[in-house]
Amino acid sequence: MIPAPYLLYIGRSVDAVAIKTSRGLATFRPKDCVGEFRHDNCPLTLGLPRLGMAEAVAAGARTLVLGIANPGGTFEQHLIEDAEAALHAGMNVAAGLHQRLRDQQRLASLAREQKLQLFDVRDRPADPVVGTGYPRPGHRLLTVGTDCSTGKMYAALALTSAMRERGLAADFRATGQTGILIAGAGVPVDAVIADFISGAIEQLAPARSDGGWDVVEGQGSLFHPSFAGVSTGLLHGAQPEAIVICHDPDRTDMRGLRGRALPDLAECLEQNLNVGRLTSPNIRAVGICLNTSQMDAVSARRLCERTEDRLGVPCTDPIAFGVENIVDELLCTVP
Amino acid sequence: MIPAPYLLYIGRSVDAVAIKTSRGLATFRPKDCVGEFRHDNCPLTLGLPRLGMAEAVAAGARTLVLGIANPGGTFEQHLIEDAEAALHAGMNVAAGLHQRLRDQQRLASLAREQKLQLFDVRDRPADPVVGTGYPRPGHRLLTVGTDCSTGKMYAALALTSAMRERGLAADFRATGQTGILIAGAGVPVDAVIADFISGAIEQLAPARSDGGWDVVEGQGSLFHPSFAGVSTGLLHGAQPEAIVICHDPDRTDMRGLRGRALPDLAECLEQNLNVGRLTSPNIRAVGICLNTSQMDAVSARRLCERTEDRLGVPCTDPIAFGVENIVDELLCTVP
Repeated sequence: MIPAPYLLYIGRSVDAVAIKTSRGLATFRPKDCVGEFRHDNCPLTLGLPRLGMAEAVAAGARTLVLGIANPGGTFEQHLIEDAEAALHAGMNVAAGLHQRLRDQQRLASLAREQKLQLFDVRDRPADPVVGTGYPRPGHRLLTVGTDCSTGKMYAALALTSAMRERGLAADFRATGQTGILIAGAGVPVDAVIADFISGAIEQLAPARSDGGWDVVEGQGSLFHPSFAGVSTGLLHGAQPEAIVICHDPDRTDMRGLRGRALPDLAECLEQNLNVGRLTSPNIRAVGICLNTSQMDAVSARRLCERTEDRLGVPCTDPIAFGVENIVDELLCTVP
Repeated sequence: MIPAPYLLYIGRSVDAVAIKTSRGLATFRPKDCVGEFRHDNCPLTLGLPRLGMAEAVAAGARTLVLGIANPGGTFEQHLIEDAEAALHAGMNVAAGLHQRLRDQQRLASLAREQKLQLFDVRDRPADPVVGTGYPRPGHRLLTVGTDCSTGKMYAALALTSAMRERGLAADFRATGQTGILIAGAGVPVDAVIADFISGAIEQLAPARSDGGWDVVEGQGSLFHPSFAGVSTGLLHGAQPEAIVICHDPDRTDMRGLRGRALPDLAECLEQNLNVGRLTSPNIRAVGICLNTSQMDAVSARRLCERTEDRLGVPCTDPIAFGVENIVDELLCTVP
């Protein structure tokens, strides 16, 4: 576990998408975030107090989270300098870039001297296992999508919260950098060796007998030519009895692939059920989550209703309208 | 490229399956194999001259191939000693285990001293790329399967040979350890980071404009819960216009998964076409390869005929009956 509370790094970022990991923490773990660290030239903010390293430590911060994504996932010089300053001030440092904190010699030796820790959340599991698909006890829900970045993490977190509010045991199981930092644990499934994708998810959401739910964060899409292998292994490993599909109705092209249209929502849902049956014969769809942030509330409501009528599955925008209708469906259809 | 000719290692192996890589080389590159190296207590043989290290060098061998698989893919002490002896005698050493030759300090320094090379064929590509699925020119055929180890490599090699005999340009594209050693190049797709599976195959079989064929070796099965992610990414990356499905009619359980039945051949074929359409809209099945080694010739013929009638696709056992009927179908149905 990465010691909280956190100081969230936005540094010199100028692109709102680049700070999505820091933003995710600010949104989903607000009590654990004492402030944000940004340089004078940074136009972005998370709406948290702006703190220097020493101020953050004085405010209780135990870890600086480098919650940014930059092209290539590399450590630029100024990032290393800021991480050094955090270590000098007495904070651990966490990051989820492709490059590793511990491979930066200055940081590694400084952390040793200071008896502080470096957390590389994109590390692969040390002892990967090959998945088996053998049926295992426990309730599991997986969020899937028509594309990358369609709100699968948000939906999984919202469902976990809503289920807990109803008194159910429910745990979010993270599979990406931001989710892992929010949950404090998880598997970066895109960084796992190909042979171990489903096995990594079987480890992440193992057999469970308390009647509670593992809500597994999905990745990619069965219809994304770059990442469908990851999505397939994730679906087989999760062995979910329920899936929720996430979709952005305003998107025209698959993420990163100009000219490739998104799949039809109904077709994509059907294919997820079809592929999922291999390890979860009774798999069923319990919800559709749409991103309606570009619409007015009336149009958004109407789209959710039309989608629900067309597919016969409860539909919502989790940010605008919550996920109660999906939890209702989940609890009424699952034995 | 790994310098031929080879001395094939079987060492102290007692299990015929454990030496399948050495056997693959002996079968498919007989001219490049000068002999086999085995210890006195080894009951197996490839039918090649038994040579010591120095004898092999005298016979022209340039590389010792550690063509064995052992549980865990680790280097046992006696394997390291034999590899040292090969280096002392003046041979390069190649291996495809999970552990790396170059991580064995004694071997690494000895190779440096001797100015010889160590080849770890299971190494991931150094510069992995994310696949795009963008249409690329060139004819590609992929072998797929109902399970692991159903003859996908053999079928791909047999098809490549048969196409060449008809005067076509055709290249086998290897995706596994044995195939890579046979071809001298390839991508160990099971060792690629999950995000890069389809990209690795796009690199392996890039755009081609000479009218010739890339015959891509498949791995696993869309219906194998352990490895379907690999098979999915491979199928999307290969972007094949033609697939050949390989099946072992005598197998009751999926490999390594006691109690899990194999999928129906027709259903598995349909699912491969279905998933494959994402990047290859006109994908079609051109053949079925059965392993009939446990049957008499009459029953084998009859099974091929029945299967062909049932699925409407040419069926053969490539070892017993060759693959001419599949090449006929390929050339008559592909524009």
